[in-house]
Amino acid sequence: MKIAQNILNTFFPPIVGAKDLIKEIKPDKSIINLSQGIPSIMPPNQAVLMLTEKMSELESIHKYSDDRGIPELREEIKKDIYERHGIKIGVENILITAGANMAFFQAILTLLNSGDTILIPSPYYFNYVMAANFLNVEVREVNILNEDIFLEEFRNKLSDKLDAVLFINPENPTGRVYDKEFLREVYKVSLKKNIVFIYDEVYRDFYIEDGARHYSPIEEYGISENLIILGSFSKSYGMTGYRVGYLIADKEFIWNLLKVQDTNIICAPVASQYLAYYSLKYFKNHPEEYVERLKKSVEIFCEKMKDVDWFNFRKPEGAIYTLLNYDFPIDGNEMVKMLYEREGILTVSGNSFGRFSNRSLRISFNDLDVERILELKKRFEEFGKWIKEK
Amino acid sequence: MKIAQNILNTFFPPIVGAKDLIKEIKPDKSIINLSQGIPSIMPPNQAVLMLTEKMSELESIHKYSDDRGIPELREEIKKDIYERHGIKIGVENILITAGANMAFFQAILTLLNSGDTILIPSPYYFNYVMAANFLNVEVREVNILNEDIFLEEFRNKLSDKLDAVLFINPENPTGRVYDKEFLREVYKVSLKKNIVFIYDEVYRDFYIEDGARHYSPIEEYGISENLIILGSFSKSYGMTGYRVGYLIADKEFIWNLLKVQDTNIICAPVASQYLAYYSLKYFKNHPEEYVERLKKSVEIFCEKMKDVDWFNFRKPEGAIYTLLNYDFPIDGNEMVKMLYEREGILTVSGNSFGRFSNRSLRISFNDLDVERILELKKRFEEFGKWIKEK
Repeated sequence: MKIAQNILNTFFPPIVGAKDLIKEIKPDKSIINLSQGIPSIMPPNQAVLMLTEKMSELESIHKYSDDRGIPELREEIKKDIYERHGIKIGVENILITAGANMAFFQAILTLLNSGDTILIPSPYYFNYVMAANFLNVEVREVNILNEDIFLEEFRNKLSDKLDAVLFINPENPTGRVYDKEFLREVYKVSLKKNIVFIYDEVYRDFYIEDGARHYSPIEEYGISENLIILGSFSKSYGMTGYRVGYLIADKEFIWNLLKVQDTNIICAPVASQYLAYYSLKYFKNHPEEYVERLKKSVEIFCEKMKDVDWFNFRKPEGAIYTLLNYDFPIDGNEMVKMLYEREGILTVSGNSFGRFSNRSLRISFNDLDVERILELKKRFEEFGKWIKEK
Repeated sequence: MKIAQNILNTFFPPIVGAKDLIKEIKPDKSIINLSQGIPSIMPPNQAVLMLTEKMSELESIHKYSDDRGIPELREEIKKDIYERHGIKIGVENILITAGANMAFFQAILTLLNSGDTILIPSPYYFNYVMAANFLNVEVREVNILNEDIFLEEFRNKLSDKLDAVLFINPENPTGRVYDKEFLREVYKVSLKKNIVFIYDEVYRDFYIEDGARHYSPIEEYGISENLIILGSFSKSYGMTGYRVGYLIADKEFIWNLLKVQDTNIICAPVASQYLAYYSLKYFKNHPEEYVERLKKSVEIFCEKMKDVDWFNFRKPEGAIYTLLNYDFPIDGNEMVKMLYEREGILTVSGNSFGRFSNRSLRISFNDLDVERILELKKRFEEFGKWIKEK
C-alpha cells in the first residue's frame, strides 16, 4: 500500500525495533534486561480493588466519559498541582489523555503548523521527534550537555524563529535533572520571545538525590499562554498498560485540543481513568517505596561499576536511566547485539536518542539488586576484555 | 496560545458542541435524549467478571502490551474474520487501536500526504472529515443519495486524482446499508485506479432487516494493497468507555502504522483489550438481544411517525440512526434548540454531517420503547403545530 512521505521519512520506533534486532540471537547466559522503561512497580492493590468493584457496579464506567476526562480525576489533578506548587488552576485547564505520548502528539498537532520549528534537547526521547516528523515540524536538535553554553546560545541565536521548546525533567534517556535556575531562565527567554515551553513531568516522582524537589514553571507563572505541561500516571503508579496521562494548558488551547481529542480517541479509557483517580487520591505516596529501591540500585551500581573500564556514565539524578558511554568505533546497534549475544545483557543503542549519543547504551536501573549488579559487573568486565582483544 | 492553522480550519466536534448549544436551556418537559450514538447495551457480565479476576491476578495486565495488541485478541479477530467471511488473514494484518476513530486517524496519517484527496460520501461521520482537515488532506464530499448516479460518476471523473475512498457500512448518520453489488463495483474501480478503499464496519452487528448479512470486500479479495478495514468493539459490546478498535490491512502498511501507534498511544489499554477478547471469544452472540430490541423500536417508530407531517425519513436498514428531514427554512442548530426548549427532545443538527443534510435532525433509535415512541409522537405533533403557526 502507499505510505505517506512523512511516515517514510520517520525512523522506526527503536524499542519495537530492538526486539527485532535480537530476535535471532540466543545468548548462552541468562538474560539481564536493562532495556525497558517500565518501572517494576505495580498499581496500588487497593486502588485496583476499588476499580474492579466499581466496574461490577456502575453502568457509566462502561461508557464514554466527557472528552476531557472524568471530573473526579481532573479535580484531583487540580488539587495535586495546588499541593505541589501552591498554584490554583481550573479543571478547564486539564485534559486527560491516553498517556503522555498522546498528550505531546495532540499538543503539537494543535499548536504547530507544517514548517514550524521545535527545539528538542538531545539526547532526546525518540517518540517526540517522531511526532514532529509526522507533522512536518522541523526539529532543532541541540546538544544540551552544558547548560551554561545552551543558555547563552538560547538567549542569542538559538531561540530565533522558534515556535516551541521541549524539556523533559527528569530526563529520559540521561537521568539528568535540570538546574532550577537554568529552567527559569529558559522559560523567561521563551516567554519574551513568544516560544511555547512544553514541559514533560512524567518522571516527577522519581528523584534520586535525597531532598530533591521537582520544579515546575507553573509555580511562578501559573497557567500561561506559553506553557504546556505533560504528565502521566504510567510511571508513578506502575500502570503503563492503562494509558492515562494529562495535559495542562490555558483554557483556549484545551478547547482547541478537544477537536483533536474527539477525533483521535474521544476520551481516555474510562476504567483506566478511575484507577488513576483512586491512585492519586488515596495512594499519593505509593511511588516512595519504589524510589527507595531505585536510589539503592543507583548507589550500588555507581559504586560497583567504577572498576569497569570500557565505559563511563553520569550518576542519574532522576528518572530510571543512564547512558553508558564507550569510545570504540563501533555502532550502537552492533554493540547492543554483541553485548546481548556474548553476555545476555539487553540495552538500547544510544543512536535511538539522536546524534549526540552515538556511542552509548541506555540502561534502566529498574529492578537491579546487589546480586544482579555484581553479576552485571562480572559480565561487563568479561565483555570489556573480549572487546579490547577484538 | 498559538493554534495551528489546520486546527483553526476544522469545525468543533458537534457532539461536544451540542452540549454547549443547549447548556442554558431548561425545558419544561422531561428530556428525551435522541442525540447519543451509544447503544443501550452493557458489556457481557461474565466478560467483565473474567476481566476483574484477571486484573487481581495477572501482573502483565497492568503493563504495556505489544504495540500491535495482545496476541489473544488478534488471534480471535483473525478467527472471527474467517468465520464471517471465509478468508484467512494473519495476525500480522491486525493492529488493535483505542477505538475506530483512532484507527481511521492513524490510517490516513500513515497513508496520505498533505494535499492528497479522499472521497467521503455525504452525509458523513464528522470525525473522519476532521481527521482529514488536521492533515491538510482534501475531502471530496459527495452526495450519495443515489447509488447508481454515484457509481456512474465514480467510474468516470469522480475517481480521478483520488487517493482514498471511505465507506461506512451500515452508515452513520443515515442508517443506510449499501447494496452489495454497488460496493463491489466501487471496490473494483478503486482497485483498478489504485485508490485505497477504507471500509468502516463499526456497525456490522447492527442490521435491522431480517436475514440481512454484512458484506465486506475482504471476502472476495482477502488482504489487498487497496483495502483498509476499520472495526470496533464499542458498539457491538456496549463498551464505548474501554476504547478498543482495530485495523486490518496488508503487513507492510501495519508495519509503517506501528510508527504512528507507538508515538500516539504505544498500545491500546490492556485491560480493555482483555474485555474485548473475552467478549468476542465467549459471547459472540451478545449483540443479538440488543438488535432484536432495536428492530422493534424501528418498526414501531416507523409505524407511529407516519402521521407526523413536518418531517420525512428513511427507514434505516442498519446502525442505530436516521435523519428526520424537514423543509422549513430554519437552520439545523436553531431547530435543535427549539425542539429541545419546547418539547425536551434532544437531537443532533444535520449540519454536523455535511452540506447535504442541512435541514435535518439525526435521531438515535437507542432505547425507544412503545411508550416513549407514543410520547415522542405527541410532542412531535405539538411541535409541528407550533412551528407552522410561527
